[in-house]
Amino acid sequence: MGEMNVWSIDARTGEKVEAVATAATEAEVDAAAVRAAQVAPVLVGAGLEGRARLLRAMADEIEKDGDAIVAAADRESALGETRLRGELARSAYQLRLFAQVLEDGGYLELTIDHPDPNAIPAPRPDLRRMLIPVGPVAVFSASNFPLAFSVPGGDTASAIAAGCPVVVKAHSGHPYTSQLCAAALRRAAASVALPEDVVQVIHGRAGGTRLVQHPAIQAVGFTGSLGGGRALYDLACARPTPIPFYGELGSINPFVVTPAAAAERAEAIATGLAGSFTLGIGQFCTKPGLVFVPAGGDGQRLVAALADAAAKIPGGPMLTPSIRDGFLSGAAARAALPGVRVALAADGQTAPHVIVASASTLDDVLLEECFGPLVVVVEYADEDELFAALSRVPGSLTATVHCGQDEGGAGSFADRVAQRVSEQAGRILFNGYPTGVAVTWAQHHGGPYPATTFPHHTSVGTTAIRRFLRPVAYQDAPDGLLPAELREDNPLGLPRRVDGQYRLDG
Amino acid sequence: MGEMNVWSIDARTGEKVEAVATAATEAEVDAAAVRAAQVAPVLVGAGLEGRARLLRAMADEIEKDGDAIVAAADRESALGETRLRGELARSAYQLRLFAQVLEDGGYLELTIDHPDPNAIPAPRPDLRRMLIPVGPVAVFSASNFPLAFSVPGGDTASAIAAGCPVVVKAHSGHPYTSQLCAAALRRAAASVALPEDVVQVIHGRAGGTRLVQHPAIQAVGFTGSLGGGRALYDLACARPTPIPFYGELGSINPFVVTPAAAAERAEAIATGLAGSFTLGIGQFCTKPGLVFVPAGGDGQRLVAALADAAAKIPGGPMLTPSIRDGFLSGAAARAALPGVRVALAADGQTAPHVIVASASTLDDVLLEECFGPLVVVVEYADEDELFAALSRVPGSLTATVHCGQDEGGAGSFADRVAQRVSEQAGRILFNGYPTGVAVTWAQHHGGPYPATTFPHHTSVGTTAIRRFLRPVAYQDAPDGLLPAELREDNPLGLPRRVDGQYRLDG
Repeated sequence: MGEMNVWSIDARTGEKVEAVATAATEAEVDAAAVRAAQVAPVLVGAGLEGRARLLRAMADEIEKDGDAIVAAADRESALGETRLRGELARSAYQLRLFAQVLEDGGYLELTIDHPDPNAIPAPRPDLRRMLIPVGPVAVFSASNFPLAFSVPGGDTASAIAAGCPVVVKAHSGHPYTSQLCAAALRRAAASVALPEDVVQVIHGRAGGTRLVQHPAIQAVGFTGSLGGGRALYDLACARPTPIPFYGELGSINPFVVTPAAAAERAEAIATGLAGSFTLGIGQFCTKPGLVFVPAGGDGQRLVAALADAAAKIPGGPMLTPSIRDGFLSGAAARAALPGVRVALAADGQTAPHVIVASASTLDDVLLEECFGPLVVVVEYADEDELFAALSRVPGSLTATVHCGQDEGGAGSFADRVAQRVSEQAGRILFNGYPTGVAVTWAQHHGGPYPATTFPHHTSVGTTAIRRFLRPVAYQDAPDGLLPAELREDNPLGLPRRVDGQYRLDG
Repeated sequence: MGEMNVWSIDARTGEKVEAVATAATEAEVDAAAVRAAQVAPVLVGAGLEGRARLLRAMADEIEKDGDAIVAAADRESALGETRLRGELARSAYQLRLFAQVLEDGGYLELTIDHPDPNAIPAPRPDLRRMLIPVGPVAVFSASNFPLAFSVPGGDTASAIAAGCPVVVKAHSGHPYTSQLCAAALRRAAASVALPEDVVQVIHGRAGGTRLVQHPAIQAVGFTGSLGGGRALYDLACARPTPIPFYGELGSINPFVVTPAAAAERAEAIATGLAGSFTLGIGQFCTKPGLVFVPAGGDGQRLVAALADAAAKIPGGPMLTPSIRDGFLSGAAARAALPGVRVALAADGQTAPHVIVASASTLDDVLLEECFGPLVVVVEYADEDELFAALSRVPGSLTATVHCGQDEGGAGSFADRVAQRVSEQAGRILFNGYPTGVAVTWAQHHGGPYPATTFPHHTSVGTTAIRRFLRPVAYQDAPDGLLPAELREDNPLGLPRRVDGQYRLDG
């Protein structure tokens, strides 16, 4: 196989602008994985302070190159400058937040049990536990967030914070953006006297497949499609030494409007929904894709207002030609289903679509994500019909409940819905819209399969770091052979659980 | 397929004593999984306090039946009354420790971020995160700990604490013990007005296979062999909706004696080692199976003393006929390898064996676990040879370093060894012996594959509960619709991280 050029394509015109890289050969993938393993000890050795400095330098460097990065991302994604400036700010914030996570130190889960010769049921040695990095991590970039879920995104930030070098498989939709971001991150490493190879980028699908199987890679972060993600997940599990594959594979994000909420504010909900399902041309993993409204007048008002509001929202180019084709054929297939009513069509256009169906005759196809500006509204006759339909909804990143003013207490209709959907989603929103995922300590961006392959983990928020850590316990270690984090005098002043009691000053 | 009797076999005589159950049919497995799902909400609803009471009742009930349980376990395992009384005490202690974990509440990882309309890079909603139970858990009992890693063992205790009903696949080696233990645990549930079906037991290999694939099962805890465990792991990964399979599959547990340690106390180390590798007829997952000693006089003294000490330790019946057969053929195969010296043989007996090899010619077979009273001693000429051999050692639950009095500081030979083995084991011991795993807050009983399928997790210690939990975040929830754990006024007085700061009183 000869050298394969990787082209930067203008998302608005479909034109090949320039060849920005070549697809990684097998030898190049292997070399990248080996280099990642070689620099891993340096990243660990940098310690909490050194990695915090690195993360802040990375934030600074992507901001310094902000104009060029945003211009490249806009050309390659058509997402627009405003959105992409926001995404860049989010990525920089995220890198700096992980620096705070390191300084806080709680993520290390430091735990010390002193020896007890009289312990029941048996004498107990000195045991000291902490989390340590797993080693090199492969990151698969997302198409739809060229900055926040790609080279400088949450996977990279959390892996670097944990102490794991990263090899990013760039998304084919924005290779030039990926190159620019990688250059900034690598320059940041050099600026704090760390190896540039703590972040590497490769291009090409075959290279990504090989990367998941390389023995040096210890974990994978992935954001993408169900088909591609599941195939890579299967490869990760089938390795001689399996590794965790943290994949975010797609989400329908159920959204339930209770009868009381529909009666109180059908139009307001419709307006919010229209903005949410069309945001970024509907290309959000948290897009509300399946909206349950009560059958009858209030629900009908909501649907009408939703179609009206969405009709005023312009469409636009999608991220890539294949995403556009997938959307158009998916929208056409849904509209053609028996029993379905098309409340807003945009034939052959990547513009808002509203499809209406009945809970009692809901087709399985409508339970599948349709990536793009399309929403399916499902009318339910009563609570039984709603719950029967909800039980068929696949695991999702989010579930939203819109409730009435008098439903804020235990036992209400809204409460029962919230309890039910908490079994099938990672984030439960009330009276809001799921697009937009704040980067905070309490955030959870995960959910039961197929939303993610590991609902125990998140790809957004400070606890995303946990994916790239494993515990180790030291038994009866001489104090001088312990990592500083676990030494008896707590030289780093970190919070620790000691003899069962959590202590903020260790 | 007709009814298949499950026999309780006397481990000392090989005699079938009585049929104590029948192998579960497909319908029975399905019914058990469905019942587990049905009682799951009740276990969640019991709350921290209710589950703490349940765990303590379970401890009380297995203690009440202690005489009968220990007698059954002794007959079925030949492990002896003293050991089994200790194991029962350990299991009871473990159940009560998890009650403390619930009362502590830190395991919930409660995290609250208040809304901030002025947040950078974007306004931030109210977000509240906690861990919730994943749902029904399948537990596969171990052969070698009929009480501590079986029906009332660490997997069951941590799953119940998390709020997950358990279906245990009993080990074929101790079905009667399993029945007695299950009866005690189920009686405990009834005694605190909870459904008995929070713990169920099934028998038979086919039933276990079906259990792993049942849609209601959300996670698996497994302790057993590499072959059987990997096969079940593969099934868990290949499900339409994959689930985590927390398997402990076998461990060689490297044990390194530095030149200084050998010079200082070869005989003392040999005595300790002899006791450790023969404990329970060598049937411990933490048995030190591969001991590295310096070539030359001190190492030779150690080997001689080890063979002498081990020769005085009696053998005995092993857990099951197939385990005995596996041990005898494994021991014979190792003794027959070219370049291997047999320092202590016990031809055809399940009694201590000491095999000596050279690091420079170490055969791959010697890197595989040999379950039973056999230890492989590897002589290394220098640090390079030691490290080259260590790099071939598979992931292990433990690694042990015996160091000299002057090696307690950074940069010593012992330090370099400890750093190296921390990459391939979950617990690093110093100057001790790895058999015996204290149940504490800081314990970690896990390690890189094949020691476990998920080195991020432990099956012993309080953090074992994490395996059966997943996060959920509530966004802008009305206070009355939040779980009590996350309500603004913190009615349960739990520790919480609020706006980035950890607070012991929430």
